[in-house]
Amino acid sequence: MQHARESFGRQKAMAFIGASLTALEPGKADVSLPYRPELTQQKGYVHGGIIGMIADTACGYAAYSLMPATASLVTVEYKINILAPARSSLVARGEVVKAGRTLTVTRAEVYAADGTHVATMQQTLMMLANTPDTPE
Amino acid sequence: MQHARESFGRQKAMAFIGASLTALEPGKADVSLPYRPELTQQKGYVHGGIIGMIADTACGYAAYSLMPATASLVTVEYKINILAPARSSLVARGEVVKAGRTLTVTRAEVYAADGTHVATMQQTLMMLANTPDTPE
Amino acid sequence: MQHARESFGRQKAMAFIGASLTALEPGKADVSLPYRPELTQQKGYVHGGIIGMIADTACGYAAYSLMPATASLVTVEYKINILAPARSSLVARGEVVKAGRTLTVTRAEVYAADGTHVATMQQTLMMLANTPDTPE
Amino acid sequence: MQHARESFGRQKAMAFIGASLTALEPGKADVSLPYRPELTQQKGYVHGGIIGMIADTACGYAAYSLMPATASLVTVEYKINILAPARSSLVARGEVVKAGRTLTVTRAEVYAADGTHVATMQQTLMMLANTPDTPE
Repeated sequence: MQHARESFGRQKAMAFIGASLTALEPGKADVSLPYRPELTQQKGYVHGGIIGMIADTACGYAAYSLMPATASLVTVEYKINILAPARSSLVARGEVVKAGRTLTVTRAEVYAADGTHVATMQQTLMMLANTPDTPE
Repeated sequence: MQHARESFGRQKAMAFIGASLTALEPGKADVSLPYRPELTQQKGYVHGGIIGMIADTACGYAAYSLMPATASLVTVEYKINILAPARSSLVARGEVVKAGRTLTVTRAEVYAADGTHVATMQQTLMMLANTPDTPE
Repeated sequence: MQHARESFGRQKAMAFIGASLTALEPGKADVSLPYRPELTQQKGYVHGGIIGMIADTACGYAAYSLMPATASLVTVEYKINILAPARSSLVARGEVVKAGRTLTVTRAEVYAADGTHVATMQQTLMMLANTPDTPE
Repeated sequence: MQHARESFGRQKAMAFIGASLTALEPGKADVSLPYRPELTQQKGYVHGGIIGMIADTACGYAAYSLMPATASLVTVEYKINILAPARSSLVARGEVVKAGRTLTVTRAEVYAADGTHVATMQQTLMMLANTPDTPE
């Protein structure tokens, strides 16, 4: 699991928005994001793209937690439904639906601080065996 | 179209990541994003969530350009395929596929500075008639 | 719930492929499909479009079970991941993730007779109030 | 291209619903479907799952047209927006967005006989090199 924590630590985009990896176990990962006005859209709610960003990342590390440290992974695609607007801290809970040899399918649920179900994501990732997970 | 420009101007999240609305015509919108290290994932490429963020926004303003200034719109869902990694400036070109009375379906293509096709998105939005597009 | 059963009974496409509504409770619906060679693709597995068809329908009736009999509903969009090939009977289990005033978000899991997880779907539906759910 | 035509010919599900491969060129494929009452849902429109089925297949053969005859391909996932109800013959026009070494991303547009834009799909496929495209 250490490789997943280290990989998350290299994600400058997560530090930039203020997100952190708050839980990690085999096949599951939580990414938490405190509310900040900089993350909002035109009506003052957290931007749907930001919600997608933490859900995508939670899914990715749920998958990466099951892979060898010598592998790297890339997001193939994701689909997210925004269920409710949010103006609070968020947590994205990612989990693996099916871990395949090449492709892994994951899902994430995003919740607001008051428990509101904010979004749901379905995602596909591809494992690249024997590929460094660091900048070239 | 002025209402769409003003709405984009209220998106603190776009200013935060450094994105701007670089083209707008009825049913089409471009969102451009200069490269910045803060926007990258663990391997130094622009984060897939950031790519989703500008594509989601380009789709949204393509749709909003066709709506009355008295309406507001919300993202129902989006699905994005990441086609190639990117380590450069990006532009997301959104366009309306079908503008309905309640729902609008849009699409965006994201390109890197060298023309590489980086991502493709399909999105659904819902128009809220007679609803302010500003913070409550 | 009777309105949902009657609506399913009007789906000629379900009868055509041999599918039936095998469970229905508020917010949940199962659609079962016996294996038939006519439903297969080039390699002899059940066609991915057929899998999508029963998952789409299971999601739809999970949603419709919560709506008044005077309403009709339409599929806005769905996204399905095929997780494993199947050469057996299938069951699609749909459930409501979020029932909104206009839009409902659902999910379905499709399983083979031996328990294999064959597919997972995320779907969006729109309720049309006071609209007949019958042919015009 | 002959391998793609032969593969389509092995799809019993296409014959079952009455669909045929009406155009095929490198990276593009059309699947046409005459209207039949057996393909309809509760309101008499062509079932959304049937629309997904021909779009999925058009995308698949658009992709397969670019692959060697020694390869096989599987649908990883697809996402479809239903844009308008249809009570007529349909044609699904699939095309390749990005052909990768392992994964190919495609898109399809579905049109009714009167030109109405009925649906739009975005799909991901995986190529299996040196794998027979026939039943085991």
